[in-house]
Amino acid sequence: MKNAVGREIPDQLLGEGKEVYQGKGYMDGKYFQKATPRTRRYETPQESKIVQSIREACEKCGAHDGMTFSFHTEFREGDYVASMVAKVLIEDMGLKDITVAATSLGNAQDNFADYIEQGKIIGVQTSGVRGRIGEVISAGKLKTPAIIRSHGGRPRAIETGDVHIDIAFLAVASSDCCGNSSGIGGRNNCGSLGFAIHDTHFADHVVIVTDTIVEYPNLPSSISSIDVDCVCVVDEVGDATKISTKEARMTDNPRELMMAENVANVIAANPYFKDGFSFQTGVGGPSLAVNRFLEKHMLEKGIKMSFALGGTSKAICDLMDKGLVGRILDTQDFDQGAIDHIFKNPNHVEIDLSEYANPANKGAYVNKLDFVVLSALEIDTNFNVNVITGSDGVLRGAPGGHPDTAAGSKCCIIVTPLTRGRMATVCKDVVTVTTPGDCVDVLVTDYGIAVNPLRQDIIGYLDEAGIKHVTIESLQEKAYSMIGTPDDLEWEDDVVAIVEARDGTILDVVRKIKPMELD
Amino acid sequence: MKNAVGREIPDQLLGEGKEVYQGKGYMDGKYFQKATPRTRRYETPQESKIVQSIREACEKCGAHDGMTFSFHTEFREGDYVASMVAKVLIEDMGLKDITVAATSLGNAQDNFADYIEQGKIIGVQTSGVRGRIGEVISAGKLKTPAIIRSHGGRPRAIETGDVHIDIAFLAVASSDCCGNSSGIGGRNNCGSLGFAIHDTHFADHVVIVTDTIVEYPNLPSSISSIDVDCVCVVDEVGDATKISTKEARMTDNPRELMMAENVANVIAANPYFKDGFSFQTGVGGPSLAVNRFLEKHMLEKGIKMSFALGGTSKAICDLMDKGLVGRILDTQDFDQGAIDHIFKNPNHVEIDLSEYANPANKGAYVNKLDFVVLSALEIDTNFNVNVITGSDGVLRGAPGGHPDTAAGSKCCIIVTPLTRGRMATVCKDVVTVTTPGDCVDVLVTDYGIAVNPLRQDIIGYLDEAGIKHVTIESLQEKAYSMIGTPDDLEWEDDVVAIVEARDGTILDVVRKIKPMELD
Repeated sequence: MKNAVGREIPDQLLGEGKEVYQGKGYMDGKYFQKATPRTRRYETPQESKIVQSIREACEKCGAHDGMTFSFHTEFREGDYVASMVAKVLIEDMGLKDITVAATSLGNAQDNFADYIEQGKIIGVQTSGVRGRIGEVISAGKLKTPAIIRSHGGRPRAIETGDVHIDIAFLAVASSDCCGNSSGIGGRNNCGSLGFAIHDTHFADHVVIVTDTIVEYPNLPSSISSIDVDCVCVVDEVGDATKISTKEARMTDNPRELMMAENVANVIAANPYFKDGFSFQTGVGGPSLAVNRFLEKHMLEKGIKMSFALGGTSKAICDLMDKGLVGRILDTQDFDQGAIDHIFKNPNHVEIDLSEYANPANKGAYVNKLDFVVLSALEIDTNFNVNVITGSDGVLRGAPGGHPDTAAGSKCCIIVTPLTRGRMATVCKDVVTVTTPGDCVDVLVTDYGIAVNPLRQDIIGYLDEAGIKHVTIESLQEKAYSMIGTPDDLEWEDDVVAIVEARDGTILDVVRKIKPMELD
Repeated sequence: MKNAVGREIPDQLLGEGKEVYQGKGYMDGKYFQKATPRTRRYETPQESKIVQSIREACEKCGAHDGMTFSFHTEFREGDYVASMVAKVLIEDMGLKDITVAATSLGNAQDNFADYIEQGKIIGVQTSGVRGRIGEVISAGKLKTPAIIRSHGGRPRAIETGDVHIDIAFLAVASSDCCGNSSGIGGRNNCGSLGFAIHDTHFADHVVIVTDTIVEYPNLPSSISSIDVDCVCVVDEVGDATKISTKEARMTDNPRELMMAENVANVIAANPYFKDGFSFQTGVGGPSLAVNRFLEKHMLEKGIKMSFALGGTSKAICDLMDKGLVGRILDTQDFDQGAIDHIFKNPNHVEIDLSEYANPANKGAYVNKLDFVVLSALEIDTNFNVNVITGSDGVLRGAPGGHPDTAAGSKCCIIVTPLTRGRMATVCKDVVTVTTPGDCVDVLVTDYGIAVNPLRQDIIGYLDEAGIKHVTIESLQEKAYSMIGTPDDLEWEDDVVAIVEARDGTILDVVRKIKPMELD
């Protein structure tokens, strides 16, 4: 069956409440009964919940074959905990038929790829699939299709019962003996625990993993001891050098600076750019540079930002310290500057993934977002964006908060160079749709700006401001004229991953890539 | 059927999972599936959730006959919101067969008594029943027996599904247009919203009622907008003069001071009185004075308190400011000094009722409590305590956190004068058991100290410290010799209230009192 972004969804994936994507807002107003954990009553006082090993924690929580285990990725590429726990579950305890529900997966969980190949891990539910995990899934080694969800889709799926977490293993920087936990106060700090908090309310069992035990009570905390079964102390929860980076250097690539300046100009041309506006952007490349150009416009206009949302870098903390930002609502910290900032300023507030982006709660923060600036691996002439599969069709990306902020914001701007190496970024059909075109408003490239024709209002604002723009088709043609028309990828029938829209409908599928035949 | 404190529980109240009280720790280790709300998906952005009237909020949330509505009592005797909402539901909208689930009820909700008499309110679930509400319930006017729960029993009952809240009406000091709410920042501040927070996670619908709308986002907040359906602005949420009192003056009654000093001496004689000990006490009478004598012992011994728990007064904030208390874990604020203190010091932390005292979560703070000092209306020779019914058998009290802190703490001290007016406080059988004797360790009166024989360890500590103590029977005999043996109360068969133990079993029942016959 074809869905609202024109993708053919195999019938066998539908039914039992699973539908194809029907467009933005389709689920709005529907009622549902929230899912719920099955938990143990700890009526009798315990002095401590500290266990001697991960294995002891697993046994206390009744870990067995067929369970779903969750992990978070606040420790990013430096995380030791997910791979460490999986090793205990599979190699030491011999468990099988395991499903992994993670906020993301990447190189730090490389051993998961082995367990997938061995058939021990049979299910993967995640936002990101990078590194070897992406390769083995794309090669069809995972027993069931991986389920790719956005950061808002994850808490939605947990609350609607699409995924039930048996045991959550949550890496934290510091904990007391009873599980009051924080992303700071330890040897390896990550700042916000926004990716971890929601699981503590919905998992049957919660195991805290830390390298730093502090005095009871470890308050204020991000995770409350009332949700924690066991606390497990390990040597190191992560590699500090990979958890946070030094402040990302502002790009000096003139092409990126030009795109950033154009993004800021587009923002400034909108009527939403007024005192109290809200804003989100990523790190790296032109995104970070947008902050600098935006600051200029804010100072010129004499206005301040009400709140900055999402993953946080030192750049936005600096804007707050200059008095230009009222609140930072922080789901994860990208650099040491943000980690040092978060709990020192009461206006730099940690929020969890449901507060951030869940389309099934009573109003996530993305719904109050004026502007979001996002990148893309590909964007097609229907403004559909792909951030999950490479030009070779292999899983190597992460939707993250992309589809959520795009849907919630008043103005979603994609910034990307027209081509990357031999690949046309603006194309006729993206390999995989991860953010539907009805949520994307403006595209800024190094060869021009295009506005989604659905947004005639924004076209008017740009015209009024004298900002030139072209059709997205002309950008695609320009790209093809530079690189050549890309060859179609060749797929087998097997679905290796399902891309869920944030509301739980099916947005696209990723099929097994045909092995390349060498001539 | 007789329960573990010797009370006869009518068979018709048992079955369907309802059991009689079996003693402390009976439910420990049992698993249960948490209850869950049925909530609306707000996928499409809304600019604001502000409605024009309480009635509009009720209609938006589908208020109808037979529903259960919840209220909290952080605004104490000054609360306007519960009575205001009930008036709209019953007088304006004509609803009937209503059940009220409140953290407490008292004089501020006097109109509830009328609605009970009119048969509109047919169920009451609460901790406190004071004022006219207690009188009409005791007179048998409520259609179903009232259910009396402790502060920990309430979140337990909500999570086990014993009570399902259809709409929670939550008074707050300030809110933004989307429902991020706080107990400060308004015209009428209450400080901690610890009594309100838990309902927001388990009620189908949540209506915020405030007199102060502040700029979005109102962060840090106690209640998150993701749980809020409507925000309703009223003229005043309460009477500021009754919400908080000025700092309670330290008693100068020599009898009360002597009892307070003896309580502090008992605490200091215990081995738990060491650096990092934890402590809870109430306000008023000898309780507040305990702080002063305890300070003396702490300074002498050179030790500090790890955390103070529960309802908070300026006295304990002052101890923190002197560097003698590490953390205050605050469920409600008793005076203006505590309200002014709570969000200014990051170590003065708001906690909700589940974190405080829920015996069905994974370890509430009461379970880490070393000492609690509590009052009593009556205590009997089995150390059973009554804090709900007066000597006339009429409902006029509140268990609050009494049974929870008694059960969780290492040493529970009851402080009470031996007699009050013509009533013996220490008696053979309390009118109603609200805290079972197996949770009560020491009794301090103005005529001597008694230790529960279950606690031979504490008897040893007191002997070692040279603190005299007597049997509780001798105190009871002394009381009867002073006042005379009390007449037995005369009851009818009808049960007007069920006193649930914190674990959900039935601890006692209150029957309809026989109308007094005038000679």
